[in-house]
Amino acid sequence: MTKGFRKIIRQKNAENTGFGNNASGRFINKDGLPNVTRTGVNVFNRLSWYHTMLNLSSFRFISYLVIAYVLINLVFAMIYYMIGVEHLTGIDKSDPVNEFIDVFFFSSQTFTTVGYGRIAPVGFMASLVATFEAFLGLLTFAIATGLFYGRFSRPRAYLRFSDIALIAPFQESAALMFRVAPYKNNALTDADVIVSAAIEVIENGVTKSNFYRLETQLSKINTLALNWTIVHKIDESSPFYGFSEDDFKTTDIELIVQIRAFDEVFSNTVVQRSSYVTGEIVYGARFVPMYYPDKDNLTTVLDLDKINEYQNETLPVSVGNK
Amino acid sequence: MTKGFRKIIRQKNAENTGFGNNASGRFINKDGLPNVTRTGVNVFNRLSWYHTMLNLSSFRFISYLVIAYVLINLVFAMIYYMIGVEHLTGIDKSDPVNEFIDVFFFSSQTFTTVGYGRIAPVGFMASLVATFEAFLGLLTFAIATGLFYGRFSRPRAYLRFSDIALIAPFQESAALMFRVAPYKNNALTDADVIVSAAIEVIENGVTKSNFYRLETQLSKINTLALNWTIVHKIDESSPFYGFSEDDFKTTDIELIVQIRAFDEVFSNTVVQRSSYVTGEIVYGARFVPMYYPDKDNLTTVLDLDKINEYQNETLPVSVGNK
Amino acid sequence: MTKGFRKIIRQKNAENTGFGNNASGRFINKDGLPNVTRTGVNVFNRLSWYHTMLNLSSFRFISYLVIAYVLINLVFAMIYYMIGVEHLTGIDKSDPVNEFIDVFFFSSQTFTTVGYGRIAPVGFMASLVATFEAFLGLLTFAIATGLFYGRFSRPRAYLRFSDIALIAPFQESAALMFRVAPYKNNALTDADVIVSAAIEVIENGVTKSNFYRLETQLSKINTLALNWTIVHKIDESSPFYGFSEDDFKTTDIELIVQIRAFDEVFSNTVVQRSSYVTGEIVYGARFVPMYYPDKDNLTTVLDLDKINEYQNETLPVSVGNK
Amino acid sequence: MTKGFRKIIRQKNAENTGFGNNASGRFINKDGLPNVTRTGVNVFNRLSWYHTMLNLSSFRFISYLVIAYVLINLVFAMIYYMIGVEHLTGIDKSDPVNEFIDVFFFSSQTFTTVGYGRIAPVGFMASLVATFEAFLGLLTFAIATGLFYGRFSRPRAYLRFSDIALIAPFQESAALMFRVAPYKNNALTDADVIVSAAIEVIENGVTKSNFYRLETQLSKINTLALNWTIVHKIDESSPFYGFSEDDFKTTDIELIVQIRAFDEVFSNTVVQRSSYVTGEIVYGARFVPMYYPDKDNLTTVLDLDKINEYQNETLPVSVGNK
Repeated sequence: MTKGFRKIIRQKNAENTGFGNNASGRFINKDGLPNVTRTGVNVFNRLSWYHTMLNLSSFRFISYLVIAYVLINLVFAMIYYMIGVEHLTGIDKSDPVNEFIDVFFFSSQTFTTVGYGRIAPVGFMASLVATFEAFLGLLTFAIATGLFYGRFSRPRAYLRFSDIALIAPFQESAALMFRVAPYKNNALTDADVIVSAAIEVIENGVTKSNFYRLETQLSKINTLALNWTIVHKIDESSPFYGFSEDDFKTTDIELIVQIRAFDEVFSNTVVQRSSYVTGEIVYGARFVPMYYPDKDNLTTVLDLDKINEYQNETLPVSVGNK
Repeated sequence: MTKGFRKIIRQKNAENTGFGNNASGRFINKDGLPNVTRTGVNVFNRLSWYHTMLNLSSFRFISYLVIAYVLINLVFAMIYYMIGVEHLTGIDKSDPVNEFIDVFFFSSQTFTTVGYGRIAPVGFMASLVATFEAFLGLLTFAIATGLFYGRFSRPRAYLRFSDIALIAPFQESAALMFRVAPYKNNALTDADVIVSAAIEVIENGVTKSNFYRLETQLSKINTLALNWTIVHKIDESSPFYGFSEDDFKTTDIELIVQIRAFDEVFSNTVVQRSSYVTGEIVYGARFVPMYYPDKDNLTTVLDLDKINEYQNETLPVSVGNK
Repeated sequence: MTKGFRKIIRQKNAENTGFGNNASGRFINKDGLPNVTRTGVNVFNRLSWYHTMLNLSSFRFISYLVIAYVLINLVFAMIYYMIGVEHLTGIDKSDPVNEFIDVFFFSSQTFTTVGYGRIAPVGFMASLVATFEAFLGLLTFAIATGLFYGRFSRPRAYLRFSDIALIAPFQESAALMFRVAPYKNNALTDADVIVSAAIEVIENGVTKSNFYRLETQLSKINTLALNWTIVHKIDESSPFYGFSEDDFKTTDIELIVQIRAFDEVFSNTVVQRSSYVTGEIVYGARFVPMYYPDKDNLTTVLDLDKINEYQNETLPVSVGNK
Repeated sequence: MTKGFRKIIRQKNAENTGFGNNASGRFINKDGLPNVTRTGVNVFNRLSWYHTMLNLSSFRFISYLVIAYVLINLVFAMIYYMIGVEHLTGIDKSDPVNEFIDVFFFSSQTFTTVGYGRIAPVGFMASLVATFEAFLGLLTFAIATGLFYGRFSRPRAYLRFSDIALIAPFQESAALMFRVAPYKNNALTDADVIVSAAIEVIENGVTKSNFYRLETQLSKINTLALNWTIVHKIDESSPFYGFSEDDFKTTDIELIVQIRAFDEVFSNTVVQRSSYVTGEIVYGARFVPMYYPDKDNLTTVLDLDKINEYQNETLPVSVGNK
């Protein structure tokens, strides 16, 4: 079968994903964010700095804080230096470098409100700047407190998706399968999944993406404590009905997955998304179980390292055609 | 057709907007807040100071903080001055102005808890006031911390609505259209829209506003990453059925729009509202696309500056009458 | 008609309120909280101190903070005093009272981390206690920060209920009505209401409360910006069908009202409850409108002081019996 | 009847709990968390430190904070000691131990930003480390603030489940019953319950767990202020239909309960789960009422100590077989 096969998908193009069918490239990146670039407006209006701060890695976040701290102190040190070191008590006046060093540390002692007092302001201007710097320091740490809290209290699903989706034997036919497992000590309940597929088809000579909702065998589970294998049976109602191994390899397919669950610690609904594109779909394979009873038979062990393990299986040439 | 035409809208006045039909002026302002003034009760009971603080612009918010800081320090400086500068060590007693200046800075060093100690309280009264001021300072910064966090963690949709709605050709008839696009780096999913119309009609000689729910072509989308054009087809079930260009220009119309979506960063539902009144509806026009593939065909570019761009189109004299 | 009339209410006792029918007294207090006392367990397990702190009035909350601050400093002052004032520099050793005063202020300067240094610890024990006190101080203000934020960010509906419910003429019959209005500058949308009635009946000679869900004319509105009059028509499906003025006055009735809305500033669902008992139901009256266009006809004015205003009306002797 | 009886449960194994039927041991622990151990990935990726911090007891949480405080100060004390005590003013240089003690307290005065100034840094290195320590101190207390707030603002249901479930007489047949009561001063409304049962059966010679949803008499209540007795009638649609007393004692049964309610103080949905296994089900008993009117008949008293009280009752040998 040739690539042209795709244009005879009989299912209705019904899914409203929010992507036009002349959008380009992957729709949803592997990390679940849309693959869209924005232009227009200026960059400050285009960025929510709070969203940006929440999405930084811990290392970059801390680095930014340290850099901001040093820069602020440098600026204030220069201001104090210009006002004159004679307006600060206890400065080491042996040479200009030592003066600046002492002024810099006076600034940091003010900004953090540690205020030892070995160096202290005496004139009006130095005192005024110090008054303002201490105030700024407290507000800065107020903001930092909020950012820290925002970062670590941000509800997240902590789900690990299998890197690949499989076309596996299922109920005398085949099914598209992938799996997901919670990898942290959070407690997820009432999980549900929505799977959409974008399939590039040629309609009236024009290449465009059509969107389909994929039905899954169990779209809700009560407790998401073990792994969850999501199964889309490839039967007559599936857009993949009649696809051969070659079709799965040559057609531009993108599976968009959204899992929603309730986190009992945060008492909040959390959502995680991911996607699978053509190269990430393995034809003719079956996942290996990833959980087993422990040796005392008292608990169940979930081995997260096995999430991508599968064994090969033989499927009919064209799935769905038994 | 005359203004009186409006009284023969056949659709049932079924929408329960919460506005009586003898309310006056625009119902919903462009920013989405209701156009209602409250009287009665006293003003402090009528204002939620927290809602007020959250809605202030950043500039005004910071200004209020600085003003409060200066005022509090002035008040405490006066108290210390009345207690007597002899109860503070290290005061510059050359003249009353210098005394007050030093007392003011002692106050700020106490309020911010920087406490250099160059100036320090010695008597009972000065120490007592300083004890209270340091306590007040910490509580004030505790409140400021909460306000900062409340302000920047407040979930918002960050949607930009087109300034105008269009009456555009659609499926051999016409449709009322407007569009909306997310302009920040937040990730919105599961968006839905509700559109109501308030149309001023003359019933039994009395002018009143009737409310209608407008059906839209796609009222839900999975991912709100690109722009979303909301389309209300003007067919027999629409209250605008049979409206001429003149009707759209002379009738008092208000479209009330509410978009609700799930923000995946905040894990929270966000809502944004806006409205369009008669002068903001352009008859006979079509929106120009505002997204396109990038030059490498790897991602989609959304140009926010194009959100209001449209081109003129010819429509039948009375929309809905094909 | 006698009190015994109540036993022939034909509607099914279908509402599951969570109150048994041998509960006693008012079910829901006017402020919306259940009228239940808990015993058993010890009092600390029975109280959520955080819920308690959030429900305190601002005055009591601040008072508790101040009292805690003074007590903590007294305790630490005593510890430092016992360790010996010779382990603190700068103490006024003129007499024991002055010593204790200085020690007390040293404690407060440590607890608030203001640390002027005029008084400072020198020995091991005094330094150790100061080290611990400063740590405790910071944690205490950390908790205070959380409590302040928790208190003012707590989502609330800020709704004012009319003090009384009316039995008013409605559509050639009668209806039970009460009204509610938002009194602060919050923005509520998508409001809905649930009204239940507890009616004391005599069944098989036993007095018990039966619970009924009351149908309302409009149980949802889009925008809760003006007042909302909630109307329960007394027709054949109402448990009040056939009630005379006397029945309304002598039967033990309790209306339990729950309003739920979405606050667009908090992006959160808020709920407020209230109740009306027999003495709070006025037979034969109609609410006076409480909003009107402003003098320029550009906005609508909501007069909160009118929420309880009504005028008397004549009703048939037994409502529902036209 | 023998254990083999269990294999002829006629109800369909329809409940999708998220546990495979070859999971092992109790599924849900008494505290509501899944009985699952995770392996693979490294331990830091497997733990959400924030979830861990929120689940610590108050005692352990405070202990960890104190230990961290002491350790950090020890580390900084060593750094200052290595830099040299001559770079700190005011150090007691009588012997190395006193030197280290003073350096340790200087560290704590810096970390807490109390900064008395009796000991203060003079050289470049000592000042630099102090600058960094004060900064670290403020960030640490920023994080502590967030953790405190996260811990006490975490929405929880505060429900107490009866330790045992009963098989009690009910409507001429029998029912499985357990009860739950709110034990704190929170206000829960709109509660609902989901009960599942895992029953170990022998199918084709293999022992496996089947999952069933249990229907309950009232699965929703408006106000969860008194106790709530959850009743699953054992009729023909129940998987326990035909179970004898012996069956209840010898079959591996696990009841998984999830209660969800709306907390009006937090304006948040809260969930609590628990489970009952075979040994926690009492055959032939009835709960004793746990609430009663107070002596003035003005309020209802809920006695939490009675939650597990029951009296024995006689049931037919095999419940469901009238």
